[in-house]
Amino acid sequence: MALNDETALLADLKARLMEIEDFGSSASLLGWDEAGFMPSAGARVRARQKARLAALTHQKATDPALGRLLDRLAAFADSLAEDSPDAALIRVARRDFDLATRVPAEYVARASEHGSASYNVWVGARPANDFAATMPYLETTLELSREFAEFFAGYEHVMDPLIGPDEGFTASEIAALFAALQAELRPLVNAIAEKPVVCDRCLHQTFPPAQQLAFATKIAVDFGYDLKRGRIDLSPHPFCTVFARDDVRITTRVKENDLSDALFSVLHEVGHALYEMGIASELEGTPIGHGASPGVHESQSRLWENIIGRSLPFWEHYYPLLQSLFPDQLGHIELDTFYRAINKVERTLIRTDADEITYNLHVMIRFDLECKMLEGKLAVRDLQDAWNARYEADLGLTPPNDTIGVTQDVHWYGGGIGGSFQAYTIGNILSAQLYEAAVAAKPGIEPDIAKGEFDDLRGWLGGHLHRHGRQFTGPVIAQQASGARISLEPYIRYLKQKYGALYGLAL
Amino acid sequence: MALNDETALLADLKARLMEIEDFGSSASLLGWDEAGFMPSAGARVRARQKARLAALTHQKATDPALGRLLDRLAAFADSLAEDSPDAALIRVARRDFDLATRVPAEYVARASEHGSASYNVWVGARPANDFAATMPYLETTLELSREFAEFFAGYEHVMDPLIGPDEGFTASEIAALFAALQAELRPLVNAIAEKPVVCDRCLHQTFPPAQQLAFATKIAVDFGYDLKRGRIDLSPHPFCTVFARDDVRITTRVKENDLSDALFSVLHEVGHALYEMGIASELEGTPIGHGASPGVHESQSRLWENIIGRSLPFWEHYYPLLQSLFPDQLGHIELDTFYRAINKVERTLIRTDADEITYNLHVMIRFDLECKMLEGKLAVRDLQDAWNARYEADLGLTPPNDTIGVTQDVHWYGGGIGGSFQAYTIGNILSAQLYEAAVAAKPGIEPDIAKGEFDDLRGWLGGHLHRHGRQFTGPVIAQQASGARISLEPYIRYLKQKYGALYGLAL
Repeated sequence: MALNDETALLADLKARLMEIEDFGSSASLLGWDEAGFMPSAGARVRARQKARLAALTHQKATDPALGRLLDRLAAFADSLAEDSPDAALIRVARRDFDLATRVPAEYVARASEHGSASYNVWVGARPANDFAATMPYLETTLELSREFAEFFAGYEHVMDPLIGPDEGFTASEIAALFAALQAELRPLVNAIAEKPVVCDRCLHQTFPPAQQLAFATKIAVDFGYDLKRGRIDLSPHPFCTVFARDDVRITTRVKENDLSDALFSVLHEVGHALYEMGIASELEGTPIGHGASPGVHESQSRLWENIIGRSLPFWEHYYPLLQSLFPDQLGHIELDTFYRAINKVERTLIRTDADEITYNLHVMIRFDLECKMLEGKLAVRDLQDAWNARYEADLGLTPPNDTIGVTQDVHWYGGGIGGSFQAYTIGNILSAQLYEAAVAAKPGIEPDIAKGEFDDLRGWLGGHLHRHGRQFTGPVIAQQASGARISLEPYIRYLKQKYGALYGLAL
Repeated sequence: MALNDETALLADLKARLMEIEDFGSSASLLGWDEAGFMPSAGARVRARQKARLAALTHQKATDPALGRLLDRLAAFADSLAEDSPDAALIRVARRDFDLATRVPAEYVARASEHGSASYNVWVGARPANDFAATMPYLETTLELSREFAEFFAGYEHVMDPLIGPDEGFTASEIAALFAALQAELRPLVNAIAEKPVVCDRCLHQTFPPAQQLAFATKIAVDFGYDLKRGRIDLSPHPFCTVFARDDVRITTRVKENDLSDALFSVLHEVGHALYEMGIASELEGTPIGHGASPGVHESQSRLWENIIGRSLPFWEHYYPLLQSLFPDQLGHIELDTFYRAINKVERTLIRTDADEITYNLHVMIRFDLECKMLEGKLAVRDLQDAWNARYEADLGLTPPNDTIGVTQDVHWYGGGIGGSFQAYTIGNILSAQLYEAAVAAKPGIEPDIAKGEFDDLRGWLGGHLHRHGRQFTGPVIAQQASGARISLEPYIRYLKQKYGALYGLAL
């Protein structure tokens, strides 16, 4: 193939992929608007508009001409250095194309339609403690998830296709990792449970929302979130969404009686946003111009939210400012009391409210239950009992109702069973692994935190992780940045050191 | 053709048209977001995303398959009653298709690109009083506008294709109408100019933006603007945009030192919004589910802004509320003083700040100048002089600079020359014509205004105008609703009665 041919083919490929990206970003804007701005009566037509753009994007992503183009570029890609962005682009575009074409459009539409119907039932059933109402929907969802997996016949575990190729770990690798983590967390949680319960009343006074947002925004900006390239809005559930590398937005909710909700939601979403904003600009508008995998993405949100945002040096710097914003509420509260409150470890029933240690127990329960369901070893009709039994076994609590039990999370009721939850704990593990590598490379990072300076940390993450985008899968990115595909030790070290000191444990 | 065939063809047509509508609405959301929300750095990629959706929409709108479908439905349309919505749908879709296909995609892209370049030059040149810098761009714009007209060879006047078919009036009809209006307005403006200048200082105190918005929103809701189907946001220039019949949004700006700016902008945009919200729901997602023409649309914004919103009965009802919101600023200002201030007639240089009478003089100057340019009788290099001479002749004022002279409006510098300005004055004329018909049919409308009740007015407009959408052209809609395609008399009667009383004129 002549050089000109390859150049022209590659340009054609990039133009096609950029078109798909642009339609995808437009669809994301419809979603962002829907979550925080759209008047309620607009919902019906908005669903149609979103479906329209989704169908268009799917059509473009499965265009046989795109497949032929990728075929013709295969040899060229092999001739490039493995770490060349163009090689990565062709490789990832091939992976996306194969994935998109394996799943028939008919299935996508059917699953999407069922997902909406199931979600609508769940919205009513959850507050009504009516798990039974969701069961027939959940059974179809389970069938759909199995059907999805069958499009990728040859898998090792039925969960593997649901996790997807970007994560880079099989279900059995994850199960082994989680078992090892479980073995470490159990004694730690037990030891903390024997200590007096930490008082976090100081967080549950009245905090005017505008000041809460102003404070969270100030920290977001200090972390490096550029308000010329993003904005912070309100929505019922916090999220980060990307319309372009230079337009990465986050949302949060604010609870007047819970200081930690908006604050840590913002720091979490800012972690996602800094990742997307840090991707090399030349990858913009391509499928590799995004984060590497859900787990790696979550490592960034967890790093900024927990490792930095719940650390003592961080609050040594920021607590006086917080006190000055809320003098009546916090003026008389010692830093130590506040620091303990935001790091209170407690066995509770709700994943999204859990502390950074027990959060993983919630994730692992879900991962195990969905593996069993997909394997056919757990029927939907037995799910409620299985859920309650696992909560009793792992957290020592039995949900008094399904609202804060088996129906608490949207994942199974809105989309599919399998493939989502594991990323949260993979992210926790990677967050400590990457942070340890960053500090080893730049020891000034830690003292900087106590000064409210984060440039070196963001710079290291940017250079070793962010800028690569989706050129490599999660484990390859982690290996390059920290020397290991994934490693439990840094996370365990981090937890033991922090919570050993907080709870006076001999570990 | 068998009935089943026609039913299937019609369903196919509607599906294709709805797809075009949905992509168009998605593009509108990109524009809405850009105007009021998008972080500044997002502009570059946003332009690309908008161009992408515009190209897609143009491609779908000119799809030869759509043309063949319309060909096959032509006989069927002829067999339907002329006032059947399906007949109107096929008729309007045919018109849109013919228009879209006459204009080559290459031209659309070239004109759009030039429009952006010209706009960017104008943004800098306007504040710098640098008309010369815009001249080469304006010359190309003029050529492009002529080129556009040539796609519709056979026109009577080169302006006609630029005005477009929906308006339903030719340039020569409009010129005759404007000449008659000019003859009526000139003595009226002269008579007012001989009276003492009205003092409007009361409007130029400090009015906190939040209260201004709260008051404007209250009136919007009283007019019938449903906040479940719309919302009001801030943007540098007020506008109304439609994402669905049940999602019609408006924006405004707020000037702390000008009470009338946000208030009347909102009432104006609400007029546009009520029109779109009142279109029959079965027309939603079709090309006839929009307002009939720019002039008819403007009649609705002017009716609510001026005929209602600047009337004495209206303020007899609302002024006490306004005073209670701004007691320091307005508590001591009499209703009569306020009413005169918001209806102050004055020859000024800026169209967008003009009162409801002289506004038309500004429009007619522009219409005449662009006719002359398109006819080749006025060169761009002579435009500045021609502009200044016309302002001296028509308004007795010579612009001291181009910022508030020939470069004041975006229209010529951002899009094209010809086809936009006439709608404002057509709207003014129609607003009085339609209002007179409404009051004749429902005499309770006028006393209701003094009670802050607008249901009968909105109901009449809804039934006679709004619900039809774009099934008929402007003059047909006006004829059906008020018995005349367009008639100057009601507007002249309205102006003479109102301003005769205000200025103590014997007319």
